[in-house]
Amino acid sequence: MKTYDDYYQRLLKMKPNIYIGDEKVGRDDERLKGGMRIIKETFDCAHSDEYSDICTATSHLTGKTINRFTHIHQNEEDLLKKQKMTRLLGHRVGGCIQRCMGIDSLNALSVITYECDQAIGTEFYERFKKYLEFFQDNDLVASAAQTDPKGDRLKRPHEQEDPDQYLRVIETREDGIVVRGCKINITNTPYADEMIVLPCRFMGPEDKDYAVAFALPCDWEGVKLLTRPAYVKSPKKFGTPTANIGDAETFIIFDDVFVPKERIFLNGHGDPRQTPYAGFLALMFAHYHRHSYTGCKPAVTEVIASAAALVAEYNGIEKASHVQDKISHLIGAAELVFAAGESSAKHSEKSPSGTQIPDEILTNAGRRFAGEMIYEEYKILADLSGGLIATLPFEGSFTSEEVGELAMKYLKRNPRVKPENVYRCFKGIETLAVSELAGLMQVAGLHGGGSPQMETITMMMRYDLEKLKNISKYLFGIKSKLRRYERPTVTPRKQLEKFRKVMQAKLKREQ
Amino acid sequence: MKTYDDYYQRLLKMKPNIYIGDEKVGRDDERLKGGMRIIKETFDCAHSDEYSDICTATSHLTGKTINRFTHIHQNEEDLLKKQKMTRLLGHRVGGCIQRCMGIDSLNALSVITYECDQAIGTEFYERFKKYLEFFQDNDLVASAAQTDPKGDRLKRPHEQEDPDQYLRVIETREDGIVVRGCKINITNTPYADEMIVLPCRFMGPEDKDYAVAFALPCDWEGVKLLTRPAYVKSPKKFGTPTANIGDAETFIIFDDVFVPKERIFLNGHGDPRQTPYAGFLALMFAHYHRHSYTGCKPAVTEVIASAAALVAEYNGIEKASHVQDKISHLIGAAELVFAAGESSAKHSEKSPSGTQIPDEILTNAGRRFAGEMIYEEYKILADLSGGLIATLPFEGSFTSEEVGELAMKYLKRNPRVKPENVYRCFKGIETLAVSELAGLMQVAGLHGGGSPQMETITMMMRYDLEKLKNISKYLFGIKSKLRRYERPTVTPRKQLEKFRKVMQAKLKREQ
Amino acid sequence: MKTYDDYYQRLLKMKPNIYIGDEKVGRDDERLKGGMRIIKETFDCAHSDEYSDICTATSHLTGKTINRFTHIHQNEEDLLKKQKMTRLLGHRVGGCIQRCMGIDSLNALSVITYECDQAIGTEFYERFKKYLEFFQDNDLVASAAQTDPKGDRLKRPHEQEDPDQYLRVIETREDGIVVRGCKINITNTPYADEMIVLPCRFMGPEDKDYAVAFALPCDWEGVKLLTRPAYVKSPKKFGTPTANIGDAETFIIFDDVFVPKERIFLNGHGDPRQTPYAGFLALMFAHYHRHSYTGCKPAVTEVIASAAALVAEYNGIEKASHVQDKISHLIGAAELVFAAGESSAKHSEKSPSGTQIPDEILTNAGRRFAGEMIYEEYKILADLSGGLIATLPFEGSFTSEEVGELAMKYLKRNPRVKPENVYRCFKGIETLAVSELAGLMQVAGLHGGGSPQMETITMMMRYDLEKLKNISKYLFGIKSKLRRYERPTVTPRKQLEKFRKVMQAKLKREQ
Amino acid sequence: MKTYDDYYQRLLKMKPNIYIGDEKVGRDDERLKGGMRIIKETFDCAHSDEYSDICTATSHLTGKTINRFTHIHQNEEDLLKKQKMTRLLGHRVGGCIQRCMGIDSLNALSVITYECDQAIGTEFYERFKKYLEFFQDNDLVASAAQTDPKGDRLKRPHEQEDPDQYLRVIETREDGIVVRGCKINITNTPYADEMIVLPCRFMGPEDKDYAVAFALPCDWEGVKLLTRPAYVKSPKKFGTPTANIGDAETFIIFDDVFVPKERIFLNGHGDPRQTPYAGFLALMFAHYHRHSYTGCKPAVTEVIASAAALVAEYNGIEKASHVQDKISHLIGAAELVFAAGESSAKHSEKSPSGTQIPDEILTNAGRRFAGEMIYEEYKILADLSGGLIATLPFEGSFTSEEVGELAMKYLKRNPRVKPENVYRCFKGIETLAVSELAGLMQVAGLHGGGSPQMETITMMMRYDLEKLKNISKYLFGIKSKLRRYERPTVTPRKQLEKFRKVMQAKLKREQ
Repeated sequence: MKTYDDYYQRLLKMKPNIYIGDEKVGRDDERLKGGMRIIKETFDCAHSDEYSDICTATSHLTGKTINRFTHIHQNEEDLLKKQKMTRLLGHRVGGCIQRCMGIDSLNALSVITYECDQAIGTEFYERFKKYLEFFQDNDLVASAAQTDPKGDRLKRPHEQEDPDQYLRVIETREDGIVVRGCKINITNTPYADEMIVLPCRFMGPEDKDYAVAFALPCDWEGVKLLTRPAYVKSPKKFGTPTANIGDAETFIIFDDVFVPKERIFLNGHGDPRQTPYAGFLALMFAHYHRHSYTGCKPAVTEVIASAAALVAEYNGIEKASHVQDKISHLIGAAELVFAAGESSAKHSEKSPSGTQIPDEILTNAGRRFAGEMIYEEYKILADLSGGLIATLPFEGSFTSEEVGELAMKYLKRNPRVKPENVYRCFKGIETLAVSELAGLMQVAGLHGGGSPQMETITMMMRYDLEKLKNISKYLFGIKSKLRRYERPTVTPRKQLEKFRKVMQAKLKREQ
Repeated sequence: MKTYDDYYQRLLKMKPNIYIGDEKVGRDDERLKGGMRIIKETFDCAHSDEYSDICTATSHLTGKTINRFTHIHQNEEDLLKKQKMTRLLGHRVGGCIQRCMGIDSLNALSVITYECDQAIGTEFYERFKKYLEFFQDNDLVASAAQTDPKGDRLKRPHEQEDPDQYLRVIETREDGIVVRGCKINITNTPYADEMIVLPCRFMGPEDKDYAVAFALPCDWEGVKLLTRPAYVKSPKKFGTPTANIGDAETFIIFDDVFVPKERIFLNGHGDPRQTPYAGFLALMFAHYHRHSYTGCKPAVTEVIASAAALVAEYNGIEKASHVQDKISHLIGAAELVFAAGESSAKHSEKSPSGTQIPDEILTNAGRRFAGEMIYEEYKILADLSGGLIATLPFEGSFTSEEVGELAMKYLKRNPRVKPENVYRCFKGIETLAVSELAGLMQVAGLHGGGSPQMETITMMMRYDLEKLKNISKYLFGIKSKLRRYERPTVTPRKQLEKFRKVMQAKLKREQ
Repeated sequence: MKTYDDYYQRLLKMKPNIYIGDEKVGRDDERLKGGMRIIKETFDCAHSDEYSDICTATSHLTGKTINRFTHIHQNEEDLLKKQKMTRLLGHRVGGCIQRCMGIDSLNALSVITYECDQAIGTEFYERFKKYLEFFQDNDLVASAAQTDPKGDRLKRPHEQEDPDQYLRVIETREDGIVVRGCKINITNTPYADEMIVLPCRFMGPEDKDYAVAFALPCDWEGVKLLTRPAYVKSPKKFGTPTANIGDAETFIIFDDVFVPKERIFLNGHGDPRQTPYAGFLALMFAHYHRHSYTGCKPAVTEVIASAAALVAEYNGIEKASHVQDKISHLIGAAELVFAAGESSAKHSEKSPSGTQIPDEILTNAGRRFAGEMIYEEYKILADLSGGLIATLPFEGSFTSEEVGELAMKYLKRNPRVKPENVYRCFKGIETLAVSELAGLMQVAGLHGGGSPQMETITMMMRYDLEKLKNISKYLFGIKSKLRRYERPTVTPRKQLEKFRKVMQAKLKREQ
Repeated sequence: MKTYDDYYQRLLKMKPNIYIGDEKVGRDDERLKGGMRIIKETFDCAHSDEYSDICTATSHLTGKTINRFTHIHQNEEDLLKKQKMTRLLGHRVGGCIQRCMGIDSLNALSVITYECDQAIGTEFYERFKKYLEFFQDNDLVASAAQTDPKGDRLKRPHEQEDPDQYLRVIETREDGIVVRGCKINITNTPYADEMIVLPCRFMGPEDKDYAVAFALPCDWEGVKLLTRPAYVKSPKKFGTPTANIGDAETFIIFDDVFVPKERIFLNGHGDPRQTPYAGFLALMFAHYHRHSYTGCKPAVTEVIASAAALVAEYNGIEKASHVQDKISHLIGAAELVFAAGESSAKHSEKSPSGTQIPDEILTNAGRRFAGEMIYEEYKILADLSGGLIATLPFEGSFTSEEVGELAMKYLKRNPRVKPENVYRCFKGIETLAVSELAGLMQVAGLHGGGSPQMETITMMMRYDLEKLKNISKYLFGIKSKLRRYERPTVTPRKQLEKFRKVMQAKLKREQ
């Protein structure tokens, strides 16, 4: 395992390809520090006494101890530990830990490359394992680049007026491919080592050029990062850990970029038979990522609950029954979402590749519930805080020689609490709930990993309503095949197996 | 294990003490048949190939195979199986299986009688085990009688104008006690073998006469059952299993009733030191019962979802996106509540008595969510069904020689579905969602096992907010003892252990 | 104006054509009494000192004082008074007053018959006025029959396998028409004088036979009423007005029924040019009916709020802050829905016929909000009541010589309240919230006048989103025609005027 | 009437007493420009052809045409026009118009100063009228300063450890008073002419020093403004009106400030008999302010709905039924809140002073509904927008020579929409929903004018539950005085009249 410093030194060596506004900046730009501060936690905790049991794992490839963020889940326990790790680290950074995209995309690749190989004889899985070993050995941080600009949403990739609205292969060579396009809404790329590029939807035969997956270093030739950093100016005197964190969202532009062969994991342009695996890969990444949300969203909710409880105490309303009711609903939401993740792990299954896959209905039900609750949670926090979180004068007014003492005098609330701590509490909640970063967190809480709309669609795709109807048919006296109830789910494994047979039959016919 | 027939023969032998309105009726009254039909399922499934692995258990007392409804949970697996059993049987009866009160009260007694013995040297646990063996051997069905009339809700038991508003001991004799009072809102008593009588709240020293628990046969001398049966008149020609089910709610009046010594499990009147265990017992029963809800409420929701999906198909709206969205939220609610129960089992702990206790935060969060959703669920079902569930002419109009054919003609909807099945579907949903029985199910879905209000209180009693606050204190730069997060819960076991020490210290001082 | 007795004597003279189950019964059947009891209120209040100013109006045809339920709205004030009347009477019968269908269908006919005449030269409006004078003079009670069985919902009327799934004209004669079909989910027909039959949707040219509207006495030759009465058995000793009320829902079968010419108000079969007015008529009735809901739904909500406040007092929890919060939300919902109706009246417009039409956006927004809240309202009532509303023993147990005194003893709650009143309160809420009638009221609260889904569709049909977008275009610096904001609504009047021009132009071309 | 330029010139003449952080700045500070831009609209529209009928009024004092923001409501029409004005201007600035605090505090003063005079013989009303004339003639902009820091919330003003936690009079002189304290969470003060200072709660006899109201110029000696400006950096090339707006929130510190006699409107310190009018004044201001929210909150919701509709079009999802459903709920919320305000005006009453007072139940129900919906509204906007509103690169990336063209290429969506407009749309929504200003607007939408909690309390204070209970008592057969329903409200006027009698009787006794 590596340390934060190893990681930071690696970043400093990268070529400058980041644009903030119209400035081209290096990895040492101040505005990127906040995001790195979050990633730091993932290195430090892996080395700490308190967290290492959760934050490390044993590589199934090498047997070495690795950072869990680089691990392929081998069993239920791995899924549970990843979920727990995400929750724990979320508490330490006040929200999104930003490194789960790596583990989620790697796990998806491990399942789908294997599957594609089995069905049509490609050799992606071996290639993937080599990449994974390199990834684990260097304890790399990855960004997952999935969302395309999509252009006209009513048209499929190959139907677009501008064919580049989905990232595509424009040339397949002996030694690699050339890709063109853009990925948008991508978190953490400017301070990641690698980007793992994945399709964002099912692709039909005519969309074959768009069925592509690969990995690249983030400063690769032709890659341009149009970055929007979000961060909070840290108070000078009453500094808070929260105020040192940040985020960066990026448009990754692929300006005709060459990808070497050994870094390609899907290429429908070169081999159209691979095309259908684009959709499987898209969904499998989304699925792992949603399961990660069952760890991080409880953390976000608990951070909100914690702040709500603290400010309620400072405001002297902690015992009021409506306050207790509201806080208990925050706690309840966190617990229910985490439980959904745990039960997903309990009902997980081993894919043919050996990688463990969580249950889809439960994962999606949990993630959706979290997404549907997020604005309500901010509402509760704002409700218990009162207006001050949005009107607090800047720190300078509280430290000013001229008016600082008076300003501080009027911050006093609960007499047992020092006014500086009142300041810190309201400033902290301002950062959490009112700042630009807060706006980002709300949107991410709703859309990250797929919006509630998407989770509904996934749930209904995987749930066999006909079997469900047997219950009421039986009860209503209509002929029915009611059996002892097992959740009427079409699991990913069943789907893949079914599809493998279809592909193999097709191949046979074509021979 | 016994059979339904054994059970039914036992009932027929009981003395008539049931009052429906002003009639005194026997156990063979038609209006009680529906409830017995439900209980039948618990016997039949235990003997069936398909369900016996779930519906039976091995007695920890005798090693015999017993009906799981008489079992004391020994481990996580037992809790999971009970939850699953409740879900499975709920599907078969379209809702509440009515026998879980027995298992829940027995488990609560097993924990608390042991605890009381250890703390103050009583011998309830041995007595309980004898009773349990008798209960298991005869495969008995029990009613749990907990709720007192409560009179003036702003006063405690001993402060009431009428001292009988909470059930109390009026005399302790050598061979037993005499009790007076009433238990209200009690399900299934007219067709149960035994009633297990429990306190419904914490009792202070002055309430000692009210700290009492015991078991009696339901036709015991002095016990009067004022019963309100709810049932549905079964259609004659297009009969449905649902229409054969029913329920009976009872005011159990204890008109100065003698309870033999061997059936007493708590008696603060005879021994005031026992008084504090009344509250523990009340909460422990509620706790087990709420955990049972994480099995039955998913079943109720799935029955509703199933009916909603079926009627959506018959109405030709199944594919509409709002319909899919609504059904998927029913499914999601069922899955989240069940997941809460599974995680409760996963985080369960063994009490000193050896009985397994589920996690309280998760159980209460799950049960509360179910309760808060129940009316919304009926709303969705009514929404997708349309008005016909409330306006369907009686069966006779459809079978009438004069108008039956015309009536049936206008029931046709989806051409692939026979009009009789359309009738059955709407009739079935009428029973589920519009009938008097439906009203009862709504109220039970909200209040049964404790209303959302009660679950909030329990959650907040058991959750240590100070520990939660450490997260935001840490993030906001306020001095904090943030440790790796473990849910800041005061578990029942910790509570009992703490209290045992207090009691033992007190006893020592008093000697 | 007539009296209740006049009305009742009329009913007794009607021919028996009511089927309850397979019995053919007369208007004197006990099971129909509850509905008549509700209608009685509409006669009595019109004659009472307290309500006559609201419940009567001056006929614009004859200048006579008439029951407001037979009046055509002439101005804003008429709409406000109808709304108020519905609220007031709703309080007196604990819910739906059942007579608004008459006034709503008459007003719709007055607008559309006039419009059809103007556009294509029919003479329906004169015919309608004659019918209206007869209706007003005899103070008639009408049922509006709109909903067809609809068969396969994915097909239009003329596409159905069975052409009778929508009511249709099978023959047009010199002196009238013959109709065949069925109307379902129809309230009050067995104790109404007249039924006003209306189309339930837009009709295309091929659906012309289905574009038909007319009025008939409810016992007319060939009309068969398959009736489902809902009622509550009144307690004998502790009788309550609520327990005397009831409802009847009916399948009205038209078994090849002749309708005399003077009672026909639309007939696309005889004159295909009339076909498009079917849709206008359907929507106009729905619109008036939804506006009536802005009067009755506040009444329903206030009845629930009143019961909730009363039971909270009896339960001793009235002062708890969560209780106050819940009751205030019931009050708030009633006030908001009523305000929507008042503002609809304020923004109403006069149709070409002179009949006043309320605003559509506000009416639909108000009605929808009421529908979306209804299950939540019952949840609050059940929440504050506790389980007893679903478990209360029958009255006989409280009056029984043997156990009545004991039963009554355990009903005591708040010491200032007599146990009989506690009984009445819980029995009353049982009727409101748990009985079969309650189930019907829930479904009617959701679907009556059109479900929330339908109101959303109407709102979006009538609202000009392009104009709305001008606001954000202006704010975002995108070229926009932002003008001083007037609600971007396409009013019914504008629609009708536009369509009249289209029809007239078409007619001219065809000549 | 004055112009924006008159106003701006007045500001420039004011003494610098604004602190941003630790800087002392003048009224010409860039960071205050955004707020002034909003106020500008209130001057410009009063002079415009399109808006002057709404934005001006005739002074009841002088008969002159005045800006409506300085007017005392004389009748229902005035209330309706103010509501409409607030809605119209809200559309033009994308939210809060920031000038209603002046009109709301002036109207409250006009009612209460009159009342105080009548009851106890003070001469505040004449003094107020003089002030008002000066205010109207100069077309002044006012800030209303109501919220005190409140220190320990569990203690009343005189019980606080630090007696300055509520603003108080520390000296009453012949020519005026000296006040000390602070007002927090105050909008617009740095660019207002005047501040009107009001109490924030009921005051008991021992709190008499805190019962004080007065007006001062915002740069008055001893007044210090600790200001937190919120604003958005305007894009350079694709500038948007929205991006020029801003807000400033202030802690106003009164560092022993002298208030001249003619500017005092309440002073319990000088005359303890005045003390009870503090509470009336606090509530009356809140009431007028909440009624203003029934104008501005619909505007906010319509801005959100407009943006949601626009982005849905750009995203190509406008026709999806879930999108239509969500937009229609935004529209419905706006309409319901506005209807509540209109009905409040319809049910308004004239106070003894001649000033018109809106209905309290309806105003509070409307304001509360708006507050409860606000986070849900932002959720819908974020939902339909997708993640891009939170991840959009800065403008510079789109105008950059190096990457601008590529960046713009990937913004294309709907082919009929220019990429610049796509940029403007997402940038605009970013400002509305994700920026720091957005956070402020969310909190203001919840808490401004009083949080939902406060509105519930006001509603329940004013609503006579006993009268409401008569409905269910009547229906349940319990003795009741049911009369024709009039909303059981205790209106402000009734309250004041009742209190006037109490005061006069007390005064008589004391003489």
